[in-house]
Amino acid sequence: MTSDALFGPIFAPGALRAAVSGEAWVRALLDVEAALAAAEAEAGVIAADEAQAVADACAGAPPDPERLGRAGRAGGNPVIPLVAELREAAPAAHCGATSQDVLDSAAMLVARRALAVVLGELDGVAAACAGLAREHRATPMAGRTLLQQAQPITFGLKAAGWLAGVADARAALRAVRLEAQLGGPAGTLAALGDRGPAVLAGLAARLGLAEPALPWHARRGRVAALGSALAVAAGACEKIALDVVLLAQSEVGELAEGGGGGSSSMAHKRNPAAAVRARAAARGARAAAGVLLEAMAAEHERAAGAWHAEWSALSGALAGAGGAAWCVRESLDGLVVDPQRMRANLDALLALAGEDPGLGSADAFIDRALAEAGA
Amino acid sequence: MTSDALFGPIFAPGALRAAVSGEAWVRALLDVEAALAAAEAEAGVIAADEAQAVADACAGAPPDPERLGRAGRAGGNPVIPLVAELREAAPAAHCGATSQDVLDSAAMLVARRALAVVLGELDGVAAACAGLAREHRATPMAGRTLLQQAQPITFGLKAAGWLAGVADARAALRAVRLEAQLGGPAGTLAALGDRGPAVLAGLAARLGLAEPALPWHARRGRVAALGSALAVAAGACEKIALDVVLLAQSEVGELAEGGGGGSSSMAHKRNPAAAVRARAAARGARAAAGVLLEAMAAEHERAAGAWHAEWSALSGALAGAGGAAWCVRESLDGLVVDPQRMRANLDALLALAGEDPGLGSADAFIDRALAEAGA
Amino acid sequence: MTSDALFGPIFAPGALRAAVSGEAWVRALLDVEAALAAAEAEAGVIAADEAQAVADACAGAPPDPERLGRAGRAGGNPVIPLVAELREAAPAAHCGATSQDVLDSAAMLVARRALAVVLGELDGVAAACAGLAREHRATPMAGRTLLQQAQPITFGLKAAGWLAGVADARAALRAVRLEAQLGGPAGTLAALGDRGPAVLAGLAARLGLAEPALPWHARRGRVAALGSALAVAAGACEKIALDVVLLAQSEVGELAEGGGGGSSSMAHKRNPAAAVRARAAARGARAAAGVLLEAMAAEHERAAGAWHAEWSALSGALAGAGGAAWCVRESLDGLVVDPQRMRANLDALLALAGEDPGLGSADAFIDRALAEAGA
Amino acid sequence: MTSDALFGPIFAPGALRAAVSGEAWVRALLDVEAALAAAEAEAGVIAADEAQAVADACAGAPPDPERLGRAGRAGGNPVIPLVAELREAAPAAHCGATSQDVLDSAAMLVARRALAVVLGELDGVAAACAGLAREHRATPMAGRTLLQQAQPITFGLKAAGWLAGVADARAALRAVRLEAQLGGPAGTLAALGDRGPAVLAGLAARLGLAEPALPWHARRGRVAALGSALAVAAGACEKIALDVVLLAQSEVGELAEGGGGGSSSMAHKRNPAAAVRARAAARGARAAAGVLLEAMAAEHERAAGAWHAEWSALSGALAGAGGAAWCVRESLDGLVVDPQRMRANLDALLALAGEDPGLGSADAFIDRALAEAGA
Repeated sequence: MTSDALFGPIFAPGALRAAVSGEAWVRALLDVEAALAAAEAEAGVIAADEAQAVADACAGAPPDPERLGRAGRAGGNPVIPLVAELREAAPAAHCGATSQDVLDSAAMLVARRALAVVLGELDGVAAACAGLAREHRATPMAGRTLLQQAQPITFGLKAAGWLAGVADARAALRAVRLEAQLGGPAGTLAALGDRGPAVLAGLAARLGLAEPALPWHARRGRVAALGSALAVAAGACEKIALDVVLLAQSEVGELAEGGGGGSSSMAHKRNPAAAVRARAAARGARAAAGVLLEAMAAEHERAAGAWHAEWSALSGALAGAGGAAWCVRESLDGLVVDPQRMRANLDALLALAGEDPGLGSADAFIDRALAEAGA
Repeated sequence: MTSDALFGPIFAPGALRAAVSGEAWVRALLDVEAALAAAEAEAGVIAADEAQAVADACAGAPPDPERLGRAGRAGGNPVIPLVAELREAAPAAHCGATSQDVLDSAAMLVARRALAVVLGELDGVAAACAGLAREHRATPMAGRTLLQQAQPITFGLKAAGWLAGVADARAALRAVRLEAQLGGPAGTLAALGDRGPAVLAGLAARLGLAEPALPWHARRGRVAALGSALAVAAGACEKIALDVVLLAQSEVGELAEGGGGGSSSMAHKRNPAAAVRARAAARGARAAAGVLLEAMAAEHERAAGAWHAEWSALSGALAGAGGAAWCVRESLDGLVVDPQRMRANLDALLALAGEDPGLGSADAFIDRALAEAGA
Repeated sequence: MTSDALFGPIFAPGALRAAVSGEAWVRALLDVEAALAAAEAEAGVIAADEAQAVADACAGAPPDPERLGRAGRAGGNPVIPLVAELREAAPAAHCGATSQDVLDSAAMLVARRALAVVLGELDGVAAACAGLAREHRATPMAGRTLLQQAQPITFGLKAAGWLAGVADARAALRAVRLEAQLGGPAGTLAALGDRGPAVLAGLAARLGLAEPALPWHARRGRVAALGSALAVAAGACEKIALDVVLLAQSEVGELAEGGGGGSSSMAHKRNPAAAVRARAAARGARAAAGVLLEAMAAEHERAAGAWHAEWSALSGALAGAGGAAWCVRESLDGLVVDPQRMRANLDALLALAGEDPGLGSADAFIDRALAEAGA
Repeated sequence: MTSDALFGPIFAPGALRAAVSGEAWVRALLDVEAALAAAEAEAGVIAADEAQAVADACAGAPPDPERLGRAGRAGGNPVIPLVAELREAAPAAHCGATSQDVLDSAAMLVARRALAVVLGELDGVAAACAGLAREHRATPMAGRTLLQQAQPITFGLKAAGWLAGVADARAALRAVRLEAQLGGPAGTLAALGDRGPAVLAGLAARLGLAEPALPWHARRGRVAALGSALAVAAGACEKIALDVVLLAQSEVGELAEGGGGGSSSMAHKRNPAAAVRARAAARGARAAAGVLLEAMAAEHERAAGAWHAEWSALSGALAGAGGAAWCVRESLDGLVVDPQRMRANLDALLALAGEDPGLGSADAFIDRALAEAGA
């Protein structure tokens, strides 16, 4: 029911779109409810057969996202109707939890699953950059500053710079700590007596998430930092896409995309369509990161609106960053490099500059970038 | 394939979600192609039966958005495969146009159709505010500044202020000029010879859009201004929602939502869920407006990425602004006002302040706000 | 005490920086206090000699902004200490007003004075664009889409598109309605009895500002809309700067800035430094516009933080938009156009495309753009 | 020449404003030039006495920032005129470097010096939170969700949540890696032959900055990540400020600021002015972070505008984050807690809820938060 049905496939891969889809969120919500029940059974909060009933209910056919969304309108989130349905089959479901416990934990599951796709795409971009850095270590081209030819570089050095940016962003995303959420209505886990920490630990372990020191219902720095790290990753891809688009200009002609996007009206054009798409995808990630930063201003124990804005924004940040990486990877994997044109453009510069300053430490910098990226 | 399937119904009405859906975009694309062919037939660019063939092709079963989106990946937009399909049945389709002509004109159609919903919701909000301003003209309450009780006002004055904000935003949206787009590959309408302006005028007339002085492929100020106007409308709703949420606080207790969002864990709570949802929806509109402003930096005759980022952002700005209005309208339409509690809170202030400064020009200001809003 | 001392002169003209300086704000605050006293004397709220005392106090040496700022820390705004000082000499000062009345009215004065500079710069940009559109009506060049050569245009058509964008943005800024603010502590003008509207009208008239229907302490749509209009103007300039930077690329070589920024290390370079500066300035305006949109979420009768964020943001939006225009004007005024290079690049395109599609309606569009802009 | 002279002292401490001032930037630029010369002398690039001449020139009276800024307009940055002046006294200055080398390295110096202030303020906030968490471990109050009373918590638990947010943000800022910049015109250090890496290492060591694997002229992820980390820190402070403002509401009355901002018109009010100021300061940091994220899209070897937008944005992110912390620290250091009012508000909730769910794991969570924060 959004424009994403039409535009989404252009900017993000199917696996990533699936990972942040309504279905994926519903799946994650059910996974959290099942894990919570299991952790509570282990801690003696509910009985083992009660937990089994929850597990069975969560393993059944998942509810339709649209229907659940409409049912969630009255209470402002989809967990309320989901729990009502679960409890018909398994009355012990959601014991001691609040909606946000389940939604936040599910968000972290969604993030982890989507991040696997994002990181896979970033790995692909990094590998492509490393390949170009090695292959074109000795391919001279004009270095350009303020969009003016400045001094010689090699295409390998440029690719090494791309690699370093992606590797940095990837390292930051790999280091992200995704925590389970469990606090109950006000963050005290009141209904669990003194077994709260045990259930929290059990939930986190079952979900493969980290255990927080205390509930983070209204402490959203980690979510905001995740959003920013995704925006930085998107930015690292955007930089590559920008360079590709510029080097593919008719007058520069040093790069072309192998696929080469056609035109509905001009047969001679070979648009760098994948790089163009990457630039658009990255902007979506940046806008979403802004929403997540603003959401840190959360009232009291659970926020009245800021939190609700996170759900789409987190999905959008993941799709935008991973989409940008996917598009850039496509751009680089089919990249056609024209060393002759690079040489010719460089010669024009050198003729103008009157002397060749040489390549300085270009090679050493390539080696250092490859080493730091582990590539 | 996005989280919107689950979360969308919470934050925007079905009619608005439909108006910005992939299906609606495809419908608009087909409407533009048909109108273009008709205008070109009228101007003698193509034959009448050729135009009829286009009309017939556009009237058939529309292509599936997801399929079209995937097919649009290679070229970076969905018009390229759409035109390819149309031309199989109607070779004269898309004559002299570029993808962006069709997509931009379709975007303005989508905007016009969605704006009708947005404006309808804003009308509802304005009517609710005007009703409250009249009904509670003489209902005293504490005015609060920096969240501290300050001096007496009336609830009618507060509602009059809400009204004025919404009316301003509505007037700005009503004044938006939505223009058809037609420029051909580079904005000259080269393929149309000297009949370009006539076809442009005919296209605009048929679509019910305004005629631009010249193509605006890379002149995106009007799109950005539309996004900002939507964000301002969202902000006017957000302000109301914020006040409702604050006045519904347990310790204040002056307002409550009739629906009253339940809680998955606390039976006694009556959350102002509609106002909370409005606050989240509004943030989406703001983020989208930022993307549209950034998209003004468009390269040369048609941009390489900035434009592509507009499609989702425009849809999001419309959904966010209309969604915020829809949620606030729901909040206000069922609003339960507690004049006794207002009086009691005010008395506490007056006891502290030591004297009653009176209501000054509150009544006059209410009258002026009602008059200016035409309410 | 900010980095602006060093960087400000690079991105905004002195007159504009002065117009949004601390001194200018203090001047405006004093102007408002004097006008308020005069309006109140006229309405019989205070005596004529009391108003004269206020006028005399406001005409004295203005307080140092830094000192006033430090004194305003305790109360959270600089009007509180300013009023305390004024009242020592003129006890009738600030009668019935609240800090925000004075600061908001002063903000509108600052905006009006700075807008005069911004509009002057935009006029200069528009004139330069119109001149180029006329002069290069018959200068063919390659139109470029997705940064690929596409079809012929003329440089005049490109400049006409620039003109249209700037003219639109200028028209929106000219239409901005700047309103005086007067509401007293809670927006009722309680202390003025039934003379509130008369004093408000008198204040507005004296300040040359519009009279609002009712106070707008917590209704910030007009401020947000002003910020957005400034960002749109900045964007219109940014688009021109982007095109200049791209056309000045070594490999394209169709434009150069007359001034031509030097380099600290490369003598042969001629950087399009003014266009580069414009691009940076525009981003500042956009970021500030975002702050102003967010500030619409204002609590109750006067906001607790959102309003306080407006002061710098409004100043920044004005400086950013006017600065972008100033830099672009500088870029265009000294622009060196190379029709031979344009012709050569176009010939390369035409050789590739195989046929010359002609210039279509380029001339007609130039005429229409000039007419619409009144240029 | 900006509004900062008036408004700056309200939102950021003098030491921080000084650390990001034009004077501080000029000082840092000179420090970099001196360190570069020393590193080059050590590597045998220039002679020892040449380096001494540079050191002497840099140790002289620093140029006026405004004058330097004006002189930097033509070239688009202030390093160009600075180097010209230095070279009059010390011709070996700036050998092999480009403007951006010096400005970027200086930016990292400015960041390090300003971060010391920011971290100091965050330490103060963390200490205040830890103190409140310990002191009010057994002070019950109402937990509030969606701004409705929900279940009991303790004020100590709330403060522990604040602490955890600040401690996380502080840890991220402490881990920031600030790298020296040295690449020469195109990132190859061409002029330094094979001594480039040695000079880079020496420069970094002398400046106390980290050594990058390769120049990062157009790889801005670390700058963007720094901006985001500052925005997250600002957000952690904003959350505290929001809670303080809400708990200080007249009707809640559980907290008050000791200082208590006065009002220009209402003697009875005690505004939580420091928390209000914090909320405004934080927004500035967020807006600046957005500019830095956008700046990652940097063209080729050195960007044409994106980089230029960083200078003010970085200064603003530092001032905004540190300013928010400074204001929150002031708010918390003088905080007046009213346990009786907390108790009374909680009793009202418990009467409504019908039963007391107890405090669950509140104490355990406080201990864990204190331990994790090392407090």
